[in-house]
Amino acid sequence: MIIILKQNPAPKQLESLKEWIKKMGLDIHISEGQQSTILGLVGDTSVIDIDLIGAMEIVESVKRIQEPYKAVNRKFHPSDSVIEIGGAKVGGGNFLMIAGPCSVESHSQIMNVAELVKEAGANVLRGGAFKPRTSPYAFQGMEAEGITLLLEAKARTGLPIITEIMDLSQIKFFDEVDVIQVGARNMQNFLMLKELGKMRKPVLLKRGFSNTIQELLMSAEYILSGGNPHVILCERGIRTIETATRNTLDLSAIPVIKECSHLPVIVDPSHATGYAKYVKSMSLAAVAAGADGLMIEVHDNPHAALCDGQQSLTPDAFARLAQGVEIIREGVFNIAMVEKPST
Amino acid sequence: MIIILKQNPAPKQLESLKEWIKKMGLDIHISEGQQSTILGLVGDTSVIDIDLIGAMEIVESVKRIQEPYKAVNRKFHPSDSVIEIGGAKVGGGNFLMIAGPCSVESHSQIMNVAELVKEAGANVLRGGAFKPRTSPYAFQGMEAEGITLLLEAKARTGLPIITEIMDLSQIKFFDEVDVIQVGARNMQNFLMLKELGKMRKPVLLKRGFSNTIQELLMSAEYILSGGNPHVILCERGIRTIETATRNTLDLSAIPVIKECSHLPVIVDPSHATGYAKYVKSMSLAAVAAGADGLMIEVHDNPHAALCDGQQSLTPDAFARLAQGVEIIREGVFNIAMVEKPST
Amino acid sequence: MIIILKQNPAPKQLESLKEWIKKMGLDIHISEGQQSTILGLVGDTSVIDIDLIGAMEIVESVKRIQEPYKAVNRKFHPSDSVIEIGGAKVGGGNFLMIAGPCSVESHSQIMNVAELVKEAGANVLRGGAFKPRTSPYAFQGMEAEGITLLLEAKARTGLPIITEIMDLSQIKFFDEVDVIQVGARNMQNFLMLKELGKMRKPVLLKRGFSNTIQELLMSAEYILSGGNPHVILCERGIRTIETATRNTLDLSAIPVIKECSHLPVIVDPSHATGYAKYVKSMSLAAVAAGADGLMIEVHDNPHAALCDGQQSLTPDAFARLAQGVEIIREGVFNIAMVEKPST
Amino acid sequence: MIIILKQNPAPKQLESLKEWIKKMGLDIHISEGQQSTILGLVGDTSVIDIDLIGAMEIVESVKRIQEPYKAVNRKFHPSDSVIEIGGAKVGGGNFLMIAGPCSVESHSQIMNVAELVKEAGANVLRGGAFKPRTSPYAFQGMEAEGITLLLEAKARTGLPIITEIMDLSQIKFFDEVDVIQVGARNMQNFLMLKELGKMRKPVLLKRGFSNTIQELLMSAEYILSGGNPHVILCERGIRTIETATRNTLDLSAIPVIKECSHLPVIVDPSHATGYAKYVKSMSLAAVAAGADGLMIEVHDNPHAALCDGQQSLTPDAFARLAQGVEIIREGVFNIAMVEKPST
Repeated sequence: MIIILKQNPAPKQLESLKEWIKKMGLDIHISEGQQSTILGLVGDTSVIDIDLIGAMEIVESVKRIQEPYKAVNRKFHPSDSVIEIGGAKVGGGNFLMIAGPCSVESHSQIMNVAELVKEAGANVLRGGAFKPRTSPYAFQGMEAEGITLLLEAKARTGLPIITEIMDLSQIKFFDEVDVIQVGARNMQNFLMLKELGKMRKPVLLKRGFSNTIQELLMSAEYILSGGNPHVILCERGIRTIETATRNTLDLSAIPVIKECSHLPVIVDPSHATGYAKYVKSMSLAAVAAGADGLMIEVHDNPHAALCDGQQSLTPDAFARLAQGVEIIREGVFNIAMVEKPST
Repeated sequence: MIIILKQNPAPKQLESLKEWIKKMGLDIHISEGQQSTILGLVGDTSVIDIDLIGAMEIVESVKRIQEPYKAVNRKFHPSDSVIEIGGAKVGGGNFLMIAGPCSVESHSQIMNVAELVKEAGANVLRGGAFKPRTSPYAFQGMEAEGITLLLEAKARTGLPIITEIMDLSQIKFFDEVDVIQVGARNMQNFLMLKELGKMRKPVLLKRGFSNTIQELLMSAEYILSGGNPHVILCERGIRTIETATRNTLDLSAIPVIKECSHLPVIVDPSHATGYAKYVKSMSLAAVAAGADGLMIEVHDNPHAALCDGQQSLTPDAFARLAQGVEIIREGVFNIAMVEKPST
Repeated sequence: MIIILKQNPAPKQLESLKEWIKKMGLDIHISEGQQSTILGLVGDTSVIDIDLIGAMEIVESVKRIQEPYKAVNRKFHPSDSVIEIGGAKVGGGNFLMIAGPCSVESHSQIMNVAELVKEAGANVLRGGAFKPRTSPYAFQGMEAEGITLLLEAKARTGLPIITEIMDLSQIKFFDEVDVIQVGARNMQNFLMLKELGKMRKPVLLKRGFSNTIQELLMSAEYILSGGNPHVILCERGIRTIETATRNTLDLSAIPVIKECSHLPVIVDPSHATGYAKYVKSMSLAAVAAGADGLMIEVHDNPHAALCDGQQSLTPDAFARLAQGVEIIREGVFNIAMVEKPST
Repeated sequence: MIIILKQNPAPKQLESLKEWIKKMGLDIHISEGQQSTILGLVGDTSVIDIDLIGAMEIVESVKRIQEPYKAVNRKFHPSDSVIEIGGAKVGGGNFLMIAGPCSVESHSQIMNVAELVKEAGANVLRGGAFKPRTSPYAFQGMEAEGITLLLEAKARTGLPIITEIMDLSQIKFFDEVDVIQVGARNMQNFLMLKELGKMRKPVLLKRGFSNTIQELLMSAEYILSGGNPHVILCERGIRTIETATRNTLDLSAIPVIKECSHLPVIVDPSHATGYAKYVKSMSLAAVAAGADGLMIEVHDNPHAALCDGQQSLTPDAFARLAQGVEIIREGVFNIAMVEKPST
């Protein structure tokens, strides 16, 4: 970390800053230039709050040389992480196709959808049991009963399941769930991240709808630094000035994350766009951009869904999407083959 | 709620929509125009998910006539709510001046700051015990011990105290805390909101850094609909394209909230701007805009603060700010007096 | 257009609103429901300013049934527009590969790059002559001389050329330019759009960095309604809260535009991401999402470029990108073939 | 400017970077630390494009020590600029109250409004003649005739006038206009800024709706560096995720600009909020935050306005607002008086 001081810093404040840095266990390398004095901090600077220093009166600006994350950093773990989920894998060339309804709504619905998405090529079943809803008067999910139904669908189809946790008090229901999903609104629920760090179960961490990629990586760092390396990141759109789609899917997050981290990254085009009609093209784009998987909402009767109905695909549309994904994946594979000799 | 259908809607889908609406307990009033068919929904439409309907294939658009919130709505509660906090009050002309350090750091620090802010005119003491931090390696607060110190400061000065809860598992430490603060990242932690709705203790609900005012009101609705009417709203800046300040303080939220809701609204200019140098002018602006209170970070030695140091004012600067606030409050009062006869 | 009135609207204001609507040449169809009165406007509502009506005191909300654009609307022109550029075509299955340096910097540079990108598969040459720069002290382009050099490169290689106009006073230099580029900052320079509407030369209209897709279409409408149908739209990223990339490339704009309009849409991943290292994956993603073309910055010596150097690809990297694009295009074609029978 | 290099930079690229810097006329001071090498650039770094350097492969990050603007910088011009407009002044304690209709619509309208706003305390008359409109089908203003009417209103009332220029081709109509307004969409129309820099007439420069404060200052720099020091800045709201107001008024821009620049800054709460009902509280807030003036839309019959009607105040409401502004200005003056001895 490098701290650039303003010209003629107040000596008392400079001393106070130096002491504070040393108390953090860091060494300081001072370089006095013509224009300004620069402090180089040597040691583990991940303990330093960069905003705090940047806001100090005598500081012109401050820059990290090292990223504030370690465990998720590709520099210290160059090869792709591969996460196992039941029989499925994601990362390092393995592709995850998660599909299922937004909410578990009934026994027949989830069993039916599970069979159909399996047939179409999904390798993980999704379904919401605990639903975070903006309004206290909206349908809040089938809760524990929803998980019971998911487990039955898992037993029938063999598909591993993923469902969202909204609060740590629900963790008791997740024993047999294969992947715990942390929703966008909980991405910075740091106590929850710490608890999940103590477990050894895969976690799908969704990007908050107004969080930067670096913040997503810092949240993953909470889980990995706690001892749980099984984290899958998920891009699901951010809030922007555009209103034609519910959120703006940030596909450049894929190459950015791939550069900075070894963790697999998947994409949820259903929530991001909010409309079934845009899901296919965004799925193909995500695959072309290098995503390790997709998470697609599929409903057997979208017009009667209790939540997020029209962003759901029919099972037929999902089957066609899955075929398209295979074709683009093959293309991406061929591109990589062509390039190999030239690298 | 009014649903405008596309031209020539598929009859089967229209039937499915109508049935679904009726299942929600609502009546439908159909009006067929030249351009389009309109469904007017009669009954309690707060159970309806507007996004769900808006996304349906046969729906051109959908509009609420009634706001989706009831308990927080000024229409059903025209006079300002007044919330009592120890001896202090907020709302209906009562002004709350909350001051104190970002984090409780030591016995001497919190006792010292408490005495100084009381003298300068604060009527509530703030101090962070559990700190939400982006990095797992950053200082996470003194936790339970921090609350113990706050309670001692309360006993010494008589100031009621406010501190943030990060997770429901911490609720046991808040018995003697006067106001429970829900931070920006927890604004849509719906389970927490539900639990706080069962209590009768005042809650300070901070706006999420990328949430709309309507979402803030919906989150307050969770608490009020649970039975706890003691909610204070807090504007603390939103993420925008501007980088000169940490966030962009949205002062127009004050008149918007005052129009829609009876709840008091205060402003936190310290977190919003991120720099002590901008806190005073934004505090005066907030008061001129009609805020019911302020929440100001004050530290006895800002250069050595363990978190958010440089957005903190010195006790002296806070005392001057408090004087300025009184002057602007008098101005706002005089303006109201001048206008009375003309309304 | 449908106007939903508030309950019990002031009769005088209602009369004033009705008169105003009639003065606009529209008929009104009134429907009185239990909850509210609705005005249906019949006629050409494109003259109506929806914001104006929405802000009126007696109006609850207002909704367009028809889009505010006509000439660019796919409803009135269902088949894809195909724009001809020299020998090249774009739209309706024709793919445009525009490549070249950010700025024309010297004779040898532009001749060299032109040869290399042609060989690699580009069918249009780009190069900035007039450069919009945030700072008055930065390099502002070679101006008219830059266009002369582009024309020489065109003569040598046979590639049609595209370059940006910054102000109408420069139009005299564009006689032999094949496509006039309107930059993001001029997307709402309505006088310029009107003038370009009087010409018959292709225009590449870039989305403003904080404009919605609908605003982009309205700007295209200025050109088409003036009589010039040769408009190509270009997605080039929007400003968001993400800082890892210069802007956030909004690839969902592709299916949204394809649904609403018949105009071709291409993507500029170089400006959007700001980093050469992310250009390839975003190019492939754009093609998979259905883009009709790409606009790629290529420089023969990126480290010495006078502007935007590091977002430029080397000619070699561009050649590899072009190969990858062909592979994904073939995939997209195959997907369309597979789907045909099922539609 | 300080450039922090990555560890072990490629020697060839480093040489290329150094040469490029020297070609810009700058000296380099190299400091080799344990972690990284730092280049300190000595000389006039305003010619350097910081994004270009930041994107180079061997560069970790780059930081300006000096702001990229000079003429608008308070460091080089510590006292407030005072701009004269007819008899009125703005800056350095002088307050500008601009009022008038969004558009000039008729002779009787503008004469009537001019008399009324003068009486209520306005010292400059505004009125749109050339109107930038999103839709080609919307009312585009009375154009040259509108300016003739404004000049007649000026002759009658003695109020100096301000109106917006949309394109340089209109400059011939502005001879007798007192202040030329550059609208938000033209804030980065650099050729227009250069031309205005050659004039000696006051310019009101509005912040673009998605531009940072630094970009606003850079645009002002274009005008001042051309030789015209008479620039007034105007905050008018930025696009954010909030939808309750048209834009989000960024009042913290006032203290930020006051810190960085000597130019006066005024606020336009009418366009920012989009609703007359929020204009008063935001006006008072702007004054409390230290604004040098306000720009308020006033219409004699808001319900019949041809554009932006409902964000306009009635003349009566404006008169009350002007009274309130005086009260808050007195408060701000008193606060400054109280503080003087303590500084």
